[in-house]
Amino acid sequence: MKFTTSVRVRYAETDQMGVVYHGNYFSWFEVGRVEMLRSLGFSYAELESEGCVLPVLEARCRYRRPARYDDLLGVETVVETVRGSVLVFSYAVWKEAVLLAEGETKHLVVDRTMRRTRLPERYQAALLRTLG
Amino acid sequence: MKFTTSVRVRYAETDQMGVVYHGNYFSWFEVGRVEMLRSLGFSYAELESEGCVLPVLEARCRYRRPARYDDLLGVETVVETVRGSVLVFSYAVWKEAVLLAEGETKHLVVDRTMRRTRLPERYQAALLRTLG
Amino acid sequence: MKFTTSVRVRYAETDQMGVVYHGNYFSWFEVGRVEMLRSLGFSYAELESEGCVLPVLEARCRYRRPARYDDLLGVETVVETVRGSVLVFSYAVWKEAVLLAEGETKHLVVDRTMRRTRLPERYQAALLRTLG
Amino acid sequence: MKFTTSVRVRYAETDQMGVVYHGNYFSWFEVGRVEMLRSLGFSYAELESEGCVLPVLEARCRYRRPARYDDLLGVETVVETVRGSVLVFSYAVWKEAVLLAEGETKHLVVDRTMRRTRLPERYQAALLRTLG
Repeated sequence: MKFTTSVRVRYAETDQMGVVYHGNYFSWFEVGRVEMLRSLGFSYAELESEGCVLPVLEARCRYRRPARYDDLLGVETVVETVRGSVLVFSYAVWKEAVLLAEGETKHLVVDRTMRRTRLPERYQAALLRTLG
Repeated sequence: MKFTTSVRVRYAETDQMGVVYHGNYFSWFEVGRVEMLRSLGFSYAELESEGCVLPVLEARCRYRRPARYDDLLGVETVVETVRGSVLVFSYAVWKEAVLLAEGETKHLVVDRTMRRTRLPERYQAALLRTLG
Repeated sequence: MKFTTSVRVRYAETDQMGVVYHGNYFSWFEVGRVEMLRSLGFSYAELESEGCVLPVLEARCRYRRPARYDDLLGVETVVETVRGSVLVFSYAVWKEAVLLAEGETKHLVVDRTMRRTRLPERYQAALLRTLG
Repeated sequence: MKFTTSVRVRYAETDQMGVVYHGNYFSWFEVGRVEMLRSLGFSYAELESEGCVLPVLEARCRYRRPARYDDLLGVETVVETVRGSVLVFSYAVWKEAVLLAEGETKHLVVDRTMRRTRLPERYQAALLRTLG
């Protein structure tokens, strides 16, 4: 299952090359991830308030075409893996029908003391459901 | 007393106007403030670990000339006011002898529960000493 | 005339105090400004493509209550002044009925060579109309 | 050949997890890359002024341990590949003897019209020399 949300490119996100600074795509991936979770019925903020944090173990992005100031982009998020304490999400950033970038983040589920834990059952179930 | 530290402009800090995004100067002010504190013998990290936080009540900047990618800038910090739980710092950003920007931040001293408190005595004393 | 747009606080915008980093409000002001212009029928991107740039001369913000991760905020933008080559906008950031912050930015209208110019007539007219 | 430069973690770079936001490591990689180039005798700013731009094709980072506010980090940069119009750099972020993160960026050499080109000879030669 793909979930799509949109972001509008901010001036602050551009650099002097006249395109979006490559490091800023990771904030959009975060927006995609969080909005997907919301569409499943919870917020990441709730999850944290239940003592569950999802630090990033690995992040990557391949840039195909530049995103530019004021572009209205679609950020597509897919749950790739839910296994034990590890979650993998993938992302695609579109400008209309043109693919601008693709990426992936791998997360560890930890508690507030940074010890490995599992997602609360209902989050886990919801993410698994998106795997189809 | 003026304290000066230097920052090198990062690509990530520029925008498509080819200059530094105006919002990014506030991070440099933070660098100036923190390095001044360090020059006085403590780190802001220590202060926080003693339960003291300095949220910003007010921030402003006047931009005179643009800072550009790779510029090596001098950030000058001055303690303007230390009064009860309120601190005011002012800043000037220089590129060699040219003044690029001037700013100010006003902070409240609070404890971890966000209640108004005072700076630990030795921080207070050190800041007051810089007032000359 | 007030124009309101909304922003959702991103994780990337928070800092270790558990609230939004003060420097990030200026990006939201930019969003407010740009979306107001769009509501009047143009985009700031168009304006730049017509050779008109609006560098910031002065920016400030007063912080009343912290914005937190995942808050859905209203950013209210008002045109305060349109005089010659100078524009002033003011902003208020709301979380429902609670005022979190207020700010102001002053801009100079310049052409691509950074020489002082005036807004193209139809932009000027539209901004003046919002002054009521 | 490894080139090492240092960065001090800024408050603005942390997030509410109390660690550095994962997207911000890419700015440090940029600092590493640029300072390596400087150590070889040129600045990336010069390179751009000669009409050569190095957009990022791919970026990734593996996070081993969190970087925290005020940490003084070593950013180690290595030229991995110089082949035609493609450059690959790798990075390691250290806190004293502890490896916090490792990453890689792949760049395309393009001219101002975004057409594929080659690095000016002396830059190419210098990067090749670092390959040993």
